Amino acid sequence: MDQREFEIQPNSDPNPSTTHVYHLALDIGGSLNKLVYFTKDDDHFVDGEAEISPRNTSEKSKGSRRNHPVLKGKLNFKKFETSKIDDCIDFIKTMKLHPGGSRQQENPGSQPISIKATGGGSYKYADPFKERLGINLDKEDEMDCLVAGANFLLEVVDREAYTYMGDQRQFVQIDQNDLYPYLLVNIGSGVSMIKVEGNGKFERVSGTSIGGGTFWGLGKLLTQCKSFDELLELSYQGNNKEVDMLVGDIYGGMDYAKIGLSSTAIASSFGKAMSDKKEREDYRPEDMARSLLRMISNNIGQISYLNALRFGLKRIFFGGFFIQRHPFTMDTLSVAVNFW
Amino acid sequence: MDQREFEIQPNSDPNPSTTHVYHLALDIGGSLNKLVYFTKDDDHFVDGEAEISPRNTSEKSKGSRRNHPVLKGKLNFKKFETSKIDDCIDFIKTMKLHPGGSRQQENPGSQPISIKATGGGSYKYADPFKERLGINLDKEDEMDCLVAGANFLLEVVDREAYTYMGDQRQFVQIDQNDLYPYLLVNIGSGVSMIKVEGNGKFERVSGTSIGGGTFWGLGKLLTQCKSFDELLELSYQGNNKEVDMLVGDIYGGMDYAKIGLSSTAIASSFGKAMSDKKEREDYRPEDMARSLLRMISNNIGQISYLNALRFGLKRIFFGGFFIQRHPFTMDTLSVAVNFW
Repeated sequence: MDQREFEIQPNSDPNPSTTHVYHLALDIGGSLNKLVYFTKDDDHFVDGEAEISPRNTSEKSKGSRRNHPVLKGKLNFKKFETSKIDDCIDFIKTMKLHPGGSRQQENPGSQPISIKATGGGSYKYADPFKERLGINLDKEDEMDCLVAGANFLLEVVDREAYTYMGDQRQFVQIDQNDLYPYLLVNIGSGVSMIKVEGNGKFERVSGTSIGGGTFWGLGKLLTQCKSFDELLELSYQGNNKEVDMLVGDIYGGMDYAKIGLSSTAIASSFGKAMSDKKEREDYRPEDMARSLLRMISNNIGQISYLNALRFGLKRIFFGGFFIQRHPFTMDTLSVAVNFW
Repeated sequence: MDQREFEIQPNSDPNPSTTHVYHLALDIGGSLNKLVYFTKDDDHFVDGEAEISPRNTSEKSKGSRRNHPVLKGKLNFKKFETSKIDDCIDFIKTMKLHPGGSRQQENPGSQPISIKATGGGSYKYADPFKERLGINLDKEDEMDCLVAGANFLLEVVDREAYTYMGDQRQFVQIDQNDLYPYLLVNIGSGVSMIKVEGNGKFERVSGTSIGGGTFWGLGKLLTQCKSFDELLELSYQGNNKEVDMLVGDIYGGMDYAKIGLSSTAIASSFGKAMSDKKEREDYRPEDMARSLLRMISNNIGQISYLNALRFGLKRIFFGGFFIQRHPFTMDTLSVAVNFW
């Protein structure tokens, strides 16, 4: 899923005094707290926002898509680290969404606002939202919403799904009559794998605890990076062969041809770090970050592929913050699925 | 596979002056160099050695097993870190196995000794064996040997395979007519998964780079342990919930009941280490070691299970140095297979 076109930079938040904000909703996950809200202000387009209407839809394909109402306005996305819940609450205050804010003033007799929220944090942080903002978090099931959202995007929005091969992004043409069943792999702190058979018809069939939280958590321990984005940036500059044990390292530079393993295949992630001759300080942070990223991406790709095989699903869609806007991660996932 | 009964403590090596050593063979892997040799010395039994004859075999089951010659003597196992290849060569010198050693003196006209060797190191370290010992490493394919060895043990030796559940070791009764096909999971530095259909009939169908080398390598980086055994010992004293993000951590202590995830399930391995409030020094090494062990064991169990399903294999046998003599690892693998 590409959220790039929807992304708002932190300094491009709409001006709360001139913009009407509607439909605030939250997904409070284990690592990140994602906030989405809809603004209706034709005079105040902000770079990086997107109109909510089917984009780039050719007349031909339009005919085969389901009919959805087109709202005039913009969707705005913003994220906070979940642990910094107060930053999010402050933001909502600034946007005057809370009771006593602009919206409330327009409807002075209305009840305290309920906003839709998903994710474990909608339970865990219900109290501070109530106490500081007077907001009730109206909890929706996270899997229901995830699947409904994915189905909507895949059915309605053209050029929504794509694959990465050799650094090239290629959009995937989806025949709307042949979308289901598919495997939806949502890579958050952990990874959920969901067999989707139609609207409202799905089952969480698998997952792995080795996900975005592992990349960030282990990466922070290894490199002492300060943020997820810094760690990811670092990984692009690294070389995993300084840390991983490759088939060639074991076989003196040779392939293990009989079983089809090339000398550059990773035999053991972080296997070179066993060496007695080097300490942690002797490894470059960027190499460890790279190795970690490949280890986790490969593993998710492999387990996804095995589950797709198991349930006879010919297509896998990956989503979630771990891969969003990160071509290398997506490329590694694609390579892993193709390898296995 | 249980090598416990064969294991020799370092200080119980047979006395080279009174013991005849035969059939030295090596498996030089990415992390460990495993050496096995056969001694024939009825007067010199050493505690911890084992006679090579079917053990504990009841008369009843004997009848159904294949006929193998019984040699009078003992198998001795010894391991070295592969990077310390000179220690291994020194040991072979001390045991007088090399040309000019005791065996050579008995057959003064014989050619330089060839010894059987498997693993990538048999290619990588061929030169030092030749130069320092005059020994030719006669390379055998590692998968061929692995499968032949596993089949032999499973067919011939009673009480060879077992499972762990709740810290209890339970031997698995194997009907010899119903042994094949099975999945053999060999956990070395990396992990190989082999579909075994009979003697000499097998195929490497999958694997993962997240194996024993990852445990040791990452564990060394995180804890600065000096050895694999020290790291493993450490992991037994740790608690993974200090480092892993559990379902309950995300859901404010609650289960995510709808999809069957209990509050104590690991949502994200090392996910708690994302926290801004703690640095590496604030986490206990034993907790990180524990989390790492669970992450890797769970993952191997899951991928093994998915491959067993894929190929319709009803039994999985795990082997390799990562689990050898480590009940907790074996228990975690068993739990993982049962969970998925």
